Amino acid sequence: MSLIVLGTVALDTVKTPHGKKTNMLGGSAAHFSMAARFFIPVNLVAVVGEDFPSEHIDFLRRKGIVTASLKKESGRTFRWEGEYHGDMNAALTLNTELGVLSAFHPEITDEQKKMKYIFLANVDPDIQAKLLDSIHSPKLVALDSMNYWIKHKQKSLLKLLKRVDIFVANDAEAKELSAKHSLFEAAVALRKLGPKMIVIKKGEHGVLFYSDELSFSLPAYPVRKLVDPTGAGDSFAGGFMGYLAKAQAVNKKTIKKAVGYGTVIASYNVEGFGLERTSGLTLKEINSRFAAYRNNLIL
Amino acid sequence: MSLIVLGTVALDTVKTPHGKKTNMLGGSAAHFSMAARFFIPVNLVAVVGEDFPSEHIDFLRRKGIVTASLKKESGRTFRWEGEYHGDMNAALTLNTELGVLSAFHPEITDEQKKMKYIFLANVDPDIQAKLLDSIHSPKLVALDSMNYWIKHKQKSLLKLLKRVDIFVANDAEAKELSAKHSLFEAAVALRKLGPKMIVIKKGEHGVLFYSDELSFSLPAYPVRKLVDPTGAGDSFAGGFMGYLAKAQAVNKKTIKKAVGYGTVIASYNVEGFGLERTSGLTLKEINSRFAAYRNNLIL
Repeated sequence: MSLIVLGTVALDTVKTPHGKKTNMLGGSAAHFSMAARFFIPVNLVAVVGEDFPSEHIDFLRRKGIVTASLKKESGRTFRWEGEYHGDMNAALTLNTELGVLSAFHPEITDEQKKMKYIFLANVDPDIQAKLLDSIHSPKLVALDSMNYWIKHKQKSLLKLLKRVDIFVANDAEAKELSAKHSLFEAAVALRKLGPKMIVIKKGEHGVLFYSDELSFSLPAYPVRKLVDPTGAGDSFAGGFMGYLAKAQAVNKKTIKKAVGYGTVIASYNVEGFGLERTSGLTLKEINSRFAAYRNNLIL
Repeated sequence: MSLIVLGTVALDTVKTPHGKKTNMLGGSAAHFSMAARFFIPVNLVAVVGEDFPSEHIDFLRRKGIVTASLKKESGRTFRWEGEYHGDMNAALTLNTELGVLSAFHPEITDEQKKMKYIFLANVDPDIQAKLLDSIHSPKLVALDSMNYWIKHKQKSLLKLLKRVDIFVANDAEAKELSAKHSLFEAAVALRKLGPKMIVIKKGEHGVLFYSDELSFSLPAYPVRKLVDPTGAGDSFAGGFMGYLAKAQAVNKKTIKKAVGYGTVIASYNVEGFGLERTSGLTLKEINSRFAAYRNNLIL
């Protein structure tokens, strides 16, 4: 069993109170893959430009990530530049350069078309739909998006939502798409748009899960030193989806453990810049923090 | 064993998207007492004016709250008027009338002076200190405050913090007093001001607990219909402190259960205006929701 993730692979420039890093390997699919690989083989579907350093591709491969459908095209790699201030709850985007992402057509191998676990990380919903079209018989499909597509491609996004099992959104996106003030009401409204399961990421405040049968909140793991929040949501999604794919069962027990593993990997992600911390992690470290997290929740 | 709480008894006028209520029984000590009474006899120390309806006092007594030190003085009762909009995370204060509160000198009975569990709910820190002076040998003292005293009586507040075991604050107050952006760093800084235990209330995002030996976050109980958040923090504190006083032990296990009970009672509190919901509750309902809450946290 393995998992396929469509999203971005980017060169990130990030400034936080802890320093500045230039042209780091980043992007939704990179962060997702780095988290999900602890549970299941990950197939990454994305595009980079000619300027993309080949050592980044080697690095992803060394981490066990399958890059057969990581396309290199003529043009520049997608770049994002942002800053975090104060409580670092939200990024201030300084610059976005789409580059090769603007004309991206995902192509996957015949083997990948047979995959069952699909994560559509944040890219244009039309590109997400195209990838989903090429999958023969998906078993579990999860979707992430962002405010830009909610605003500019809402019709495509709403159509796509009817085809997925899980919608993963952050709190601002959930409120914007549902036009609700309370997150619980937002979750109920998003459920009505199609996905059976709604996962709302609240950053330092944890996660709200909602389905017809099960709803719960879980807190974030308290992080002593927040260095760079970039990719925390994608790391969460990687741990969450990776665990579910490995478990090969979606039920109350596996969903909660999946949220727990996602939470723990996201807590490591924010302790370093970019992929610094998650790329060096061991499953032993993850399990150790998971045990502490679970133990703290026993009343 | 019983508990003593100093704070306000008020007439609240509150407008939320669910309606408007005028001159409801409210105040920090009233909300606290209504929650704590499920665990332990509660002695309320507060002041009201001549205009205070005697049926409110009868009502508190019928709920088992000891009103021997609820003083009635010439002048008007403390009044608060506020509105909630949007996600209702913060109140917009329209009017505050201190009335008899401005010259309040708490006086308690000889029996009350022997009490061991003390909760100093939000009033002027000099009044809080005065009450604490009159307690012979307190066993567990907890303190709540608010932004007004942090700004205008910080010296008194800092002095008082050295005399208490537990400091209960909301997220904005914790950040303001500690001058930290992250709540975890705020908790660490507040610990250094004296109190061994720091409890940061994050509203719909739950609670962060911090001590040298133990730190954890717990989520709020997901509320389907948020009617009026007024008094949620005081209800939490009442459940928390009431449970600890009943348990007569402060350790990892009782602290977590106390946070859980506080969380559950606060979740009931916000489902109705003022004391509507908490005053009609049974311990059976509380235990039932506590069981659901605890169960949802098992990973």
